[in-house]
Amino acid sequence: MDRRDFVGIVAFAGLAGGSTQELRAQDAVQDSPATDVTRRLAHWIVTSGPDETTPALRKEAVRTLLNWVGCAVGGSHSEAVNMTLSALLPFSGPGQASVFGRKERLDVMNAALANGMSSHVFDFDDTHLRTIIHPAGPVAAALVALAEYKPISGREFLYALTVGIETECRIGNAVYPNHYDAGWHITGTTGVFGAAAAAGRVLGLSEQQMLWAIGLAAVQPVGLKEMFGTMTKAFHPGRAAQNGLTAAFLASKNFNSSEQALEGKAGWANTLSTKRNYAEITDNLGKTWEAALNTYKPFPCGIVMHPSIDACIQLRNEHSLKPAQIERIELRVHPLALELNGKKTPQSGAEAKYSVYHGAAVAIIFGMAGEKQFSDRVVGDSATIMVRDHVTAVADSSLKEEQAHATVLLKDGRRLEKFIENAIGSVKNPMTDAMLEAKFLDLADGVLPQGKAKRLMDLCWKVETLPNAGNIAKAGAA
Amino acid sequence: MDRRDFVGIVAFAGLAGGSTQELRAQDAVQDSPATDVTRRLAHWIVTSGPDETTPALRKEAVRTLLNWVGCAVGGSHSEAVNMTLSALLPFSGPGQASVFGRKERLDVMNAALANGMSSHVFDFDDTHLRTIIHPAGPVAAALVALAEYKPISGREFLYALTVGIETECRIGNAVYPNHYDAGWHITGTTGVFGAAAAAGRVLGLSEQQMLWAIGLAAVQPVGLKEMFGTMTKAFHPGRAAQNGLTAAFLASKNFNSSEQALEGKAGWANTLSTKRNYAEITDNLGKTWEAALNTYKPFPCGIVMHPSIDACIQLRNEHSLKPAQIERIELRVHPLALELNGKKTPQSGAEAKYSVYHGAAVAIIFGMAGEKQFSDRVVGDSATIMVRDHVTAVADSSLKEEQAHATVLLKDGRRLEKFIENAIGSVKNPMTDAMLEAKFLDLADGVLPQGKAKRLMDLCWKVETLPNAGNIAKAGAA
Repeated sequence: MDRRDFVGIVAFAGLAGGSTQELRAQDAVQDSPATDVTRRLAHWIVTSGPDETTPALRKEAVRTLLNWVGCAVGGSHSEAVNMTLSALLPFSGPGQASVFGRKERLDVMNAALANGMSSHVFDFDDTHLRTIIHPAGPVAAALVALAEYKPISGREFLYALTVGIETECRIGNAVYPNHYDAGWHITGTTGVFGAAAAAGRVLGLSEQQMLWAIGLAAVQPVGLKEMFGTMTKAFHPGRAAQNGLTAAFLASKNFNSSEQALEGKAGWANTLSTKRNYAEITDNLGKTWEAALNTYKPFPCGIVMHPSIDACIQLRNEHSLKPAQIERIELRVHPLALELNGKKTPQSGAEAKYSVYHGAAVAIIFGMAGEKQFSDRVVGDSATIMVRDHVTAVADSSLKEEQAHATVLLKDGRRLEKFIENAIGSVKNPMTDAMLEAKFLDLADGVLPQGKAKRLMDLCWKVETLPNAGNIAKAGAA
Repeated sequence: MDRRDFVGIVAFAGLAGGSTQELRAQDAVQDSPATDVTRRLAHWIVTSGPDETTPALRKEAVRTLLNWVGCAVGGSHSEAVNMTLSALLPFSGPGQASVFGRKERLDVMNAALANGMSSHVFDFDDTHLRTIIHPAGPVAAALVALAEYKPISGREFLYALTVGIETECRIGNAVYPNHYDAGWHITGTTGVFGAAAAAGRVLGLSEQQMLWAIGLAAVQPVGLKEMFGTMTKAFHPGRAAQNGLTAAFLASKNFNSSEQALEGKAGWANTLSTKRNYAEITDNLGKTWEAALNTYKPFPCGIVMHPSIDACIQLRNEHSLKPAQIERIELRVHPLALELNGKKTPQSGAEAKYSVYHGAAVAIIFGMAGEKQFSDRVVGDSATIMVRDHVTAVADSSLKEEQAHATVLLKDGRRLEKFIENAIGSVKNPMTDAMLEAKFLDLADGVLPQGKAKRLMDLCWKVETLPNAGNIAKAGAA
């Protein structure tokens, strides 16, 4: 995610229950008393269990898994992943674990790196809106690799995923926004804890060992916002997955560490953030769930242009529009959509991800705005340019970030309008299961044969019933 | 190093050219202009060469290597290293690289981790006094593993070591003390850069690739002071070595990153420190050398008790003292020696490392204070306790941290005195080559046969003439 997108998402986070300003005000709670923070978290991680979850929470975790696997398959042949495998294959251990979308088998650690990178490289993975953490990446990448090495049931796998996500998002809540504002890419810094927690459960760590695993995770944060727009951004969740696994495996041998890794004087929170609200970590563990608030991006582009895309796709579908019919597309958008996603004539796929004009054009032409619609080829195609050049957009400060108004003027004189109140993909208007499936299959297209992609999707849906969750990773290899 | 030791070393750093207060004042220079900091550093790393060094600098680098290899051999069978190998061997790739003091062969990355940990586990490795960085660990651990995989001459090996150390110490200078005071274990955070720089040279990175390697290093800092006193502290330099290697290998495949990793708005220095004096990084590169200021600990214990140990060893040797002759030992010491190293009746080796009483006692009994003199066995031995119980110490604020006065009263009524003006191991009174050899052989004793240890030492001394520096690592395996 580019830093333009980051600001956009911060703004968009208002969707989760108020304006950006209100959220920041809520977050301004400072330094609650630190009593056994790390120990209480460790205790919960190793002693809680799937019986304490609700069907709705488990369903959301399944959706998180499905969305993440699709992203990992989709990004598996990106340049960043190709280069990483080329650089690190000579050092890989035994072929213990699969890589989604690829034939190589790697040791658990390197497979976790590859899958974690693949899943983030399109900036298309899940988002915990309050902290802008992309929660699944570090946790799921560690887990799927581990599950092939140390077989576990799908039920325990799903709960470990949930606990890992809960751990990282709660730690994120405790330090957001100061920690993020300071320069950290919060997905990589909190992700290490999530991966360690999930892996620690699978390895059956004791509370004491889990404490040490959190300590080992604390000394290995990954990721700076300075790297946004470069391949290194996708490295962050992958490396975080590896680091969390390493922490859990070392702790399983009784390798020790501080027992106040989070709250200690020279611990993680004091060193990496000027805000520390420890109650966010320890209050209502197992009762309220951040993992239930996960969201999925319908479009792999700046989030403030999502409502405009949503509007144009709906108009196209409702009226069976063809590009040749279009005279002009007029958008009214939140000011941030122009400020952050206002590139009028994008020259590449990377630029088009921040062009509301491009987003509206492909929405009208293709009825979708997936990774392919942001490829260099489509961006430079004359048919795309023709429509894109006929899109105008004006800022309207009466609109919220999640809102947009689109007017399509047809050559036959008709005028079609659509107002989007809550863009698709927000907490109030989540992607449906069918949309997640379409996104999954679109991402897998060209990487896995369709039959294989559908079987993989099916395994994700029924993860809770799988005797061996390692089969998901196996089924996702090319 | 325990945090008590940390404060001790900060104080002791006054040796390098002024009081602690003066050093802090020098360091208070804030935020010099940031112009192409990362690029200028990357340029120097890849374009400079061994011809630009002086014999004195090269000699110091050789001493750094020798001291480091001895520490790595000595710590190679510590509990922390045993546990790490037990945890991570299942994931290791091909046996590309040796581990000092052991039979296992690991892939380059895992060998770097093991050697980096071994070398720091006794807190006996080298110290850049101005920043308290232990410079060799991350850099040498990466290099020796890499040199077995990709053969290089000893001359290039030694220069890569020098450049790596220079890189990390200069980055350390730019952010010390604020960065350290914030909670970071500076050896692990700057060490990643040192390892990336050294490995980048060996891999023949272009300036552009070296820029990216620095970016990849920047997102992987390792280490919090919260972990001092636990095994995780030794993990820091080992993991830093791995992270630097990973950065260099990825960059060698053109994996890209920010080009302002150090000075960028959300870059390393802004995110990890409130002080940023970039001139420390870029001024006089290749002209003034931090690597020439490296120091070596004569004793594996709190540095403020070193002058007392020094005094007692000298008295013992000058007068051929035997424990049975001793009536009483009276020390006058800098107040910090009592504050930080004032444990009267230590119960373990770990505690004895902060007992000036124990230090004086073993100095008189054994004429040395090496790792064995701080073993649980010696600490609990009745002969040790007998002498230790007859040591007294008083604070004398007229003394500097590097000074001590010892009086030994003998049963025959004689009174022997010794004043230490500059403790052995300081910049003004460095360990001699002979002392480094004695330290090396003492560390290797019980790990490698003496003949093998001497051959290894010999290879280190003549590293500049070796056609293949990888032979050092091979010669150091058990």
